[in-house]
Amino acid sequence: MILIFQKDATESQIQQALEKITALGYVPHLSRGVLKTIVGVTGDDRSVAELEFDQLPGVEEVVHVLKPFKLASRDFHPEDTRVEIGGLRIGSDTFSLIAGPCSVEDEDQIEAIASYLAQNGLKLIRGGAFKPRSSPYSFQGLGEEGLKILKSAGRRHGLAVVTEVMAAHDVEMVGRYTDMFQVGTRNMQNFALLRALGEIRKPVLLKRSMMGTIEELLLSAEYIMKAGNTDIVLCERGIRTFETATRNTLDIAAIPVCKRWSHLPVIVDPSHSMGDWHYVPSASLAALAAGADGIIIEIHPRPEAAKSDGKQSLTLENFQRLFVKLQQLGEVLGVRVQ
Amino acid sequence: MILIFQKDATESQIQQALEKITALGYVPHLSRGVLKTIVGVTGDDRSVAELEFDQLPGVEEVVHVLKPFKLASRDFHPEDTRVEIGGLRIGSDTFSLIAGPCSVEDEDQIEAIASYLAQNGLKLIRGGAFKPRSSPYSFQGLGEEGLKILKSAGRRHGLAVVTEVMAAHDVEMVGRYTDMFQVGTRNMQNFALLRALGEIRKPVLLKRSMMGTIEELLLSAEYIMKAGNTDIVLCERGIRTFETATRNTLDIAAIPVCKRWSHLPVIVDPSHSMGDWHYVPSASLAALAAGADGIIIEIHPRPEAAKSDGKQSLTLENFQRLFVKLQQLGEVLGVRVQ
Amino acid sequence: MILIFQKDATESQIQQALEKITALGYVPHLSRGVLKTIVGVTGDDRSVAELEFDQLPGVEEVVHVLKPFKLASRDFHPEDTRVEIGGLRIGSDTFSLIAGPCSVEDEDQIEAIASYLAQNGLKLIRGGAFKPRSSPYSFQGLGEEGLKILKSAGRRHGLAVVTEVMAAHDVEMVGRYTDMFQVGTRNMQNFALLRALGEIRKPVLLKRSMMGTIEELLLSAEYIMKAGNTDIVLCERGIRTFETATRNTLDIAAIPVCKRWSHLPVIVDPSHSMGDWHYVPSASLAALAAGADGIIIEIHPRPEAAKSDGKQSLTLENFQRLFVKLQQLGEVLGVRVQ
Amino acid sequence: MILIFQKDATESQIQQALEKITALGYVPHLSRGVLKTIVGVTGDDRSVAELEFDQLPGVEEVVHVLKPFKLASRDFHPEDTRVEIGGLRIGSDTFSLIAGPCSVEDEDQIEAIASYLAQNGLKLIRGGAFKPRSSPYSFQGLGEEGLKILKSAGRRHGLAVVTEVMAAHDVEMVGRYTDMFQVGTRNMQNFALLRALGEIRKPVLLKRSMMGTIEELLLSAEYIMKAGNTDIVLCERGIRTFETATRNTLDIAAIPVCKRWSHLPVIVDPSHSMGDWHYVPSASLAALAAGADGIIIEIHPRPEAAKSDGKQSLTLENFQRLFVKLQQLGEVLGVRVQ
Repeated sequence: MILIFQKDATESQIQQALEKITALGYVPHLSRGVLKTIVGVTGDDRSVAELEFDQLPGVEEVVHVLKPFKLASRDFHPEDTRVEIGGLRIGSDTFSLIAGPCSVEDEDQIEAIASYLAQNGLKLIRGGAFKPRSSPYSFQGLGEEGLKILKSAGRRHGLAVVTEVMAAHDVEMVGRYTDMFQVGTRNMQNFALLRALGEIRKPVLLKRSMMGTIEELLLSAEYIMKAGNTDIVLCERGIRTFETATRNTLDIAAIPVCKRWSHLPVIVDPSHSMGDWHYVPSASLAALAAGADGIIIEIHPRPEAAKSDGKQSLTLENFQRLFVKLQQLGEVLGVRVQ
Repeated sequence: MILIFQKDATESQIQQALEKITALGYVPHLSRGVLKTIVGVTGDDRSVAELEFDQLPGVEEVVHVLKPFKLASRDFHPEDTRVEIGGLRIGSDTFSLIAGPCSVEDEDQIEAIASYLAQNGLKLIRGGAFKPRSSPYSFQGLGEEGLKILKSAGRRHGLAVVTEVMAAHDVEMVGRYTDMFQVGTRNMQNFALLRALGEIRKPVLLKRSMMGTIEELLLSAEYIMKAGNTDIVLCERGIRTFETATRNTLDIAAIPVCKRWSHLPVIVDPSHSMGDWHYVPSASLAALAAGADGIIIEIHPRPEAAKSDGKQSLTLENFQRLFVKLQQLGEVLGVRVQ
Repeated sequence: MILIFQKDATESQIQQALEKITALGYVPHLSRGVLKTIVGVTGDDRSVAELEFDQLPGVEEVVHVLKPFKLASRDFHPEDTRVEIGGLRIGSDTFSLIAGPCSVEDEDQIEAIASYLAQNGLKLIRGGAFKPRSSPYSFQGLGEEGLKILKSAGRRHGLAVVTEVMAAHDVEMVGRYTDMFQVGTRNMQNFALLRALGEIRKPVLLKRSMMGTIEELLLSAEYIMKAGNTDIVLCERGIRTFETATRNTLDIAAIPVCKRWSHLPVIVDPSHSMGDWHYVPSASLAALAAGADGIIIEIHPRPEAAKSDGKQSLTLENFQRLFVKLQQLGEVLGVRVQ
Repeated sequence: MILIFQKDATESQIQQALEKITALGYVPHLSRGVLKTIVGVTGDDRSVAELEFDQLPGVEEVVHVLKPFKLASRDFHPEDTRVEIGGLRIGSDTFSLIAGPCSVEDEDQIEAIASYLAQNGLKLIRGGAFKPRSSPYSFQGLGEEGLKILKSAGRRHGLAVVTEVMAAHDVEMVGRYTDMFQVGTRNMQNFALLRALGEIRKPVLLKRSMMGTIEELLLSAEYIMKAGNTDIVLCERGIRTFETATRNTLDIAAIPVCKRWSHLPVIVDPSHSMGDWHYVPSASLAALAAGADGIIIEIHPRPEAAKSDGKQSLTLENFQRLFVKLQQLGEVLGVRVQ
């Protein structure tokens, strides 16, 4: 941590800061410049985030030398974390496909998708039963009924289930049906939910907020890890920018940045980031090439009849074509696509 | 609603859309252009948001002619809504000041602030007991203990209390202490929380998400109103942009836009949007001049010792100076500042 | 300047940096932390921006303690700069109104506006003759013919002219007609143009890029000042964000930030930032209350017939109402509105 | 084009609009809804962009059904455009590599790079002699001297030269040395420059503005094409967002969007978008997988000694590793990497 003082900071303000630093057990290093004074603080200051030196009188700015997350950082844990689910190990030399509809609509729909996935050797099915929708007039999902449909199809076809949980008080109930909890983009900073997920023993798919920085994504992972659960898969799903040609702007760089800063696996959601199925194959192939550990992708047997997000869902035929391409690319890159 | 078809949409795709529209009880109006075909749909289509025509085959784009919110819209409710709290009516010819610390820290701090506010004829005190913090290592608030301190100070000094609730399962407990619920920026789309607040009979201060559009803010108000509670005050608190000179970018235009689109009162949070107390007076005066119904502002007797956000808190002396200026301006503008 | 080294930086990399710093005549201050090493550099490093220590091997990040602009900074020049034009001094206790149409269309239009302004005691007229338009099919302005109309109307009515110049090679020609050069939002970083304007002796109205930071705005002012011209008025005109309710998002905080960082006057363009005349009065009043030195505003006798941006232009009647309100507010704030 | 009227638009306002449409030779289609009236206009309205119906009294919004660009659109020109340079055809089944330093520094630097490129069968060298820099204190490039160095190295090694031109008045001079003009991100809407480049017969590499939408990029291409030059290569180089982990946010979706909307080739600049060489290989591989026609990439024999942007430059060794991976991937994807 480095404190930069205002040009007109007084001697007593500087002394006050030095004393506070020393009192906390850290060692201050003072440098007086021609125009400004700075104080470097050595020690692992990630645990003093709450001290907020930036409000000390005379202090203009505080620069953090270390990233504010610890358990999630690669410094702390150099080797890659692998998250096991459905017989796969996300984060090893695998590119994992989590496919399924945006919303669970009925048994026929899920059966069609689940049997398709199983026939192709895929292991993970996604589907939303609780849908966060901007408008109260939009379809809100089937609720627990949808979870039952998902779980039963998963059991029949040997697929692990990935589904969203929207509130801390739903964790226990949703946990009866799912193999992996998904935290949606609007809940990346729902801290009650993060803490609740830290206390259970199932993997969590943590989506980046559409306006969250990568640092904040890792701080949210830190909430879960601090509470005890380290089985976390990060998910880049597009951020909000001024560009309207796609629903959100897929931040493809989040993949190598997360890999460099953290040991956690990272996957991509090409469907929500694009918002239009035409662009989903490009985004999926780019994710693989950029080093992602998988994608979570929306497919639907009849997108035109979907109750939500049909526009961004691939038909099974289009997904099949993409799957083949991903496998070809994966072979060159030394990863198994499944 | 207007459907714009792709250039190569087939005749049967167009017919399919026309039939779907008619089946829903709406009247389609077909226009065939040289390059593209469009279909206008007349009727109040806000309640068909879930139908999502945009995934019909052949449809390129759906343009909504009406805003997607209804109860919150000025079309539906032309006269201004007034929200009563602490003897004030927010939204009438009043500029309401909701002042207090970021976090409740201890009794002395709250007593100092509450007595100051009461002496100056102010009616509303704010203070956080449950703090949403990006890092799990930051101060998380005093919890229920903090609420007790707030309520007791409020009672002693005749102040109504405004405080944040972070989860649906906390609504009942927080409601025992507060006069107005604050929904924070990270929870604007916490739909479980919005629904829970719709079912109670206390006013709600709904902050705009730092990533939310004004339309989404009003849709979130719609969630609460649809569930039965119409006592809502909107709050612009800055949005996230590329500019880093301030913590967020205060969208001053949100005031006249909300006033034109909706009948709900709208206030401004100059403290969180600026993130630096130097800029808070300018932002507060701008809010008043632009037509806001009030501000929610952070003050602290000793900002340098604050447990959170001290940097953006005004001292009581600085707040006093601002208060005087606001009153002078209010007089010219015909609103009472209190 | 502070250099933060990578965790695995070698001793020789650190020595290399220390030597480079010393060779440049600066004094390095070394602090070795538990995890990372930092080196503070004392001295006025604004002139070593080009050295780019951030590419030295082993260096992870370079933190600049001083803002990178110098001539434009308040540190360097503590008292406010006043820019004289048309008998006004922008930046003193005046709120200057620069009003006129988006585009010069014909003599009648300009005559109507100029005579209106003069009758109301205003001194500055704006109007575009060279229009930067996103589409080559949009109206591009009357060119030099438009400048003649403006200048002649200005002379008849005693108004100083403010108009845009779009390229370095046009500076001389435009200079024959205008009293103040406007640099548009798309040209804030047209460095050839900035240099050319630095070599002349007329005031420059420098608009912020719709995606430029405040720091970059001041660096662009620095280009002009370094070349010799210090008569610069900064202009906040809205930045590009995800919000689409207004054309751009007016960054009202840019006013106090510019005032704190720089000595240059700062005005606001409420018309381009809002993009809709309904919101222009609110934005104008907010600019005055927040401490701006004026506004540049679009007015038109018949907005519905305007060749560009009619939607955001005030009629003369609406402008008159706003003018009265601005004067009332100005009186309270101690500034003269004219 | 569709006109949406305000709820309270008068009958005479609607008639006025209908007459204006008819007078322009278009056919209006009127639909009266329960709450609002809309008028569809059939005909190719891209050439009436200047008419700006949105300022007609009573009109609330104008929705454009067609994209506003024409010559650049795939509708107008369905087959892919190929741009020939240095014996390559950008836009055919080739992934073209344009490599070189950020700035031309001296003959040794360029000779080292040029000979390396030629030995590896590459055909295109990049290098900046005129550098757009935010600060006037940063290195501004060698100017014409740098161009001479580039051209002479290109001739010796059989490489075509790609370099930036920053102003219309420099086009003729720069054209004496370069084989392809680069328009930088700050000049995407320098319309004088675009028009000047439209009048010559050399290919143009048009970079997207860091603040420009994809639609605006294509409108800028339209400026050049309308003036007569159709040899344009689009370049996605990252946009400005709130994320600071990378210099800009690479909009990987711009590749498939440009391919769908336009027939022009599109390449990616992984160096400027990332701003850190660690992330450049991921971004480059992603560009290839997403369907780009090439990359323009910064390499340097000694990045730590570079005069600009050394942090984002690959060493020749690192580039070599990337080159091999790109070739392997290209083979699977059916494109030749060179």
